[in-house]
Amino acid sequence: MKDVPYKIYLEENEMPKAWYNLRADMKNKPAPLLNPGTLRPMTADELAPVFCDELIAQELDETTPMIEIPQEIRDFYKMYRPSPLVRAYCLEEKLRTPAKIYYKFEGNNTSGSHKLNSAIAQAYYAKKQGLKGVTTETGAGQWGTALSMACSYFGLDCKVYMVKVSYEQKPFRREVMRVYGASVVPSPSTETAVGRKILEAHPGTTGSLGCAISEAVEVATTHPGYRYVLGSVLNQVLLHQSVIGLETKAALDKYGVKPDMIIGCAGGGSNLGGLIAPFMGEKLRGEADYQIVAVEPASCPSFTRGKFAYDFCDTGMICPLAKMYTLGANFIPAPNHAGGLRFHGMSTTLSQLYHDGLMEARAVPQVKVFEAAEEFARVEGILPAPESSHAIRVAIDEALKCKETGEEKTIVFGLTGTGYFDLTAYQKFHDGLMDDYIPTDEELAKSIEALPKVDL
Amino acid sequence: MKDVPYKIYLEENEMPKAWYNLRADMKNKPAPLLNPGTLRPMTADELAPVFCDELIAQELDETTPMIEIPQEIRDFYKMYRPSPLVRAYCLEEKLRTPAKIYYKFEGNNTSGSHKLNSAIAQAYYAKKQGLKGVTTETGAGQWGTALSMACSYFGLDCKVYMVKVSYEQKPFRREVMRVYGASVVPSPSTETAVGRKILEAHPGTTGSLGCAISEAVEVATTHPGYRYVLGSVLNQVLLHQSVIGLETKAALDKYGVKPDMIIGCAGGGSNLGGLIAPFMGEKLRGEADYQIVAVEPASCPSFTRGKFAYDFCDTGMICPLAKMYTLGANFIPAPNHAGGLRFHGMSTTLSQLYHDGLMEARAVPQVKVFEAAEEFARVEGILPAPESSHAIRVAIDEALKCKETGEEKTIVFGLTGTGYFDLTAYQKFHDGLMDDYIPTDEELAKSIEALPKVDL
Repeated sequence: MKDVPYKIYLEENEMPKAWYNLRADMKNKPAPLLNPGTLRPMTADELAPVFCDELIAQELDETTPMIEIPQEIRDFYKMYRPSPLVRAYCLEEKLRTPAKIYYKFEGNNTSGSHKLNSAIAQAYYAKKQGLKGVTTETGAGQWGTALSMACSYFGLDCKVYMVKVSYEQKPFRREVMRVYGASVVPSPSTETAVGRKILEAHPGTTGSLGCAISEAVEVATTHPGYRYVLGSVLNQVLLHQSVIGLETKAALDKYGVKPDMIIGCAGGGSNLGGLIAPFMGEKLRGEADYQIVAVEPASCPSFTRGKFAYDFCDTGMICPLAKMYTLGANFIPAPNHAGGLRFHGMSTTLSQLYHDGLMEARAVPQVKVFEAAEEFARVEGILPAPESSHAIRVAIDEALKCKETGEEKTIVFGLTGTGYFDLTAYQKFHDGLMDDYIPTDEELAKSIEALPKVDL
Repeated sequence: MKDVPYKIYLEENEMPKAWYNLRADMKNKPAPLLNPGTLRPMTADELAPVFCDELIAQELDETTPMIEIPQEIRDFYKMYRPSPLVRAYCLEEKLRTPAKIYYKFEGNNTSGSHKLNSAIAQAYYAKKQGLKGVTTETGAGQWGTALSMACSYFGLDCKVYMVKVSYEQKPFRREVMRVYGASVVPSPSTETAVGRKILEAHPGTTGSLGCAISEAVEVATTHPGYRYVLGSVLNQVLLHQSVIGLETKAALDKYGVKPDMIIGCAGGGSNLGGLIAPFMGEKLRGEADYQIVAVEPASCPSFTRGKFAYDFCDTGMICPLAKMYTLGANFIPAPNHAGGLRFHGMSTTLSQLYHDGLMEARAVPQVKVFEAAEEFARVEGILPAPESSHAIRVAIDEALKCKETGEEKTIVFGLTGTGYFDLTAYQKFHDGLMDDYIPTDEELAKSIEALPKVDL
């Protein structure tokens, strides 16, 4: 089927003009976020000091299926989108599989990942509301980079709290953010009350995502003209990321290709939620069926070993509660180089879909993930991010199964980003210093037992 | 003129099927390489122990205008090409210039630069000749990465001598090469006679490109089944890189755009020679006229302050002599972060064209280059390599001139690569620690005086 080119690019006028809001087609809606004080659903008013108004509206909108992408955002998308949908001819040949493999590559922009799709939307609405700037946290640095780029474009001030250990170990990520004019602060810092409190209690701490979130939220809510933004988990982020899936579907439709299986890595769920959105929509509406697979690290197995329950989104337990598959807010994943897949919970939307049996999940160990990453890099040319490589692992495994059974399955996976800033992990892999960390049942039971008791 | 999209992508079937050999249209051919022993033009037989046969044929071919791109190479090109020709709408708006700015972006592949275009061709011909492997040197690491990727694709052994100081300072580049299975050796090494000799004479040396070349050539010529390959300067490399210019011209033609000015950075000349090839061809044949500008660093100003004369290509003075604009083989450019622009000489083809007044050259200081890089990154989203940013500097300067004069010039420049592995340089720039190193007249006179006396 060489009629399909190596890379399918949509024309500019074929690019999506609206995002798809998957929740509109869900019969069982994701459970609402709860106010941690009252344990009642968060209202728009309660969210207003933290988030931009328009983003709150998107967060709470469960009924509008298509939400128009403002022209300014579409113009920015044109700088780095459409991203290519690649037919992995070389990988297929290497594996000698009858499967047809496609991947949607989101790494061809300076943030190195899909994060830019939501960053530019969030920055746009902040600008439109007349705000001065936004605050956020970043771990591995992809989200912080994406947000810096977006804020630079709209002339917004951007303050990034970067987990101290990453700030020190990933000076290059920090430097990219500086190119885009962001102010990057190692967290915990002495700039915030919560940071000072943590530093006093734990003088030598190298920080955590939970702490960085708390600092970013504190600054946003105590400085007029600022709001807090977040790069994953939230419904609004999945909404913006639907551009990935919409482009993927449009590209496949152009060539009359119908996938059998759609695979994506899952940390907070934003890339997966975006990639599968229009396909899941068809499934929900009974128009088509697809096998949809979330891939998570065995070291942080929210879907496969977590509990579907209300939990805090942050380790500081100050943010709203979300009903999701969770390992418990005080679960600390063992060192794991897929920085984007270390969240203890999962998007509420994806959690509900998984709970309803509409998608499946697999957990894969890290060394196997890097083996797949290297195999992929050598034949397809792209050095994948460790996060993305989780999806590659399962795509290869499935293609090899097809080789045994002779099935000509069409497999689509999300290649969310590049690994240019993850070479320390590759080095560990090559030097045989990479371990597979898998939490014990006892460990998980302990953090899951500590879940808040919530009864709606 | 919003009819032109932000990015012009050619369809697969619009991609070039043959390289364009600029020399075929040159009235004054570039002077031949000379055997350093006999001072007579190098013959194919003399070159055979060093280079692949087919590549030698291409190196010496001054008459065939179009040379077919083998299908295997075209298939590989499809993995990362066509590269986008981008209309810099956002930069134009930021500068408020009436100029129309386009750039051909070659950075969307894991080598991060245009180097892959020639690497895959050279690896292909080595494989076709039944060789076991190839050797090369690398400084900044882009060429070594590209070659590793190409060799991995064709199952060739790849041995890269990496200048020791880069090997130590750029562990991530080294690591990418390892992903692609290359063996990377810090140079000087104890593996070669020349390496041992240099280490004995200079025990603490951190190496040089000239020394790494010597080691790579020694290994290629003393190991059966191996040849040496080079990533710039040579005619064969310019030939392969013509794919850049051919795609650029095809993309512009699709929208009826005729550039007034074509700008590229120049180190050894491969990217510039490739970008301008079809345009210069038209100029040579009297079919069209274009202003063509080479941009070089003020710290290594071969065109603007060098001499057009025969010189050695390597500091070890064992390679053939080339007639080119040169600062002298023993000119050592001051520390300069554009690692790809530190060569003392220049492609013989470009040198002849410059000598004949068919193109011009400008030297730009480093701090101004990084200012342009950052300005570009903030509006166009792409973090440019320091090398590429030389072209950005002049493109912006020209666009600002248009703003003054009101001219609606169409400017095309080559964006050869990304700066993800150059963040130490960006950091220096941000911290105000970047200097402009400009060689004094005395310094240049001294190295130019030492040029070999050659009279053909």
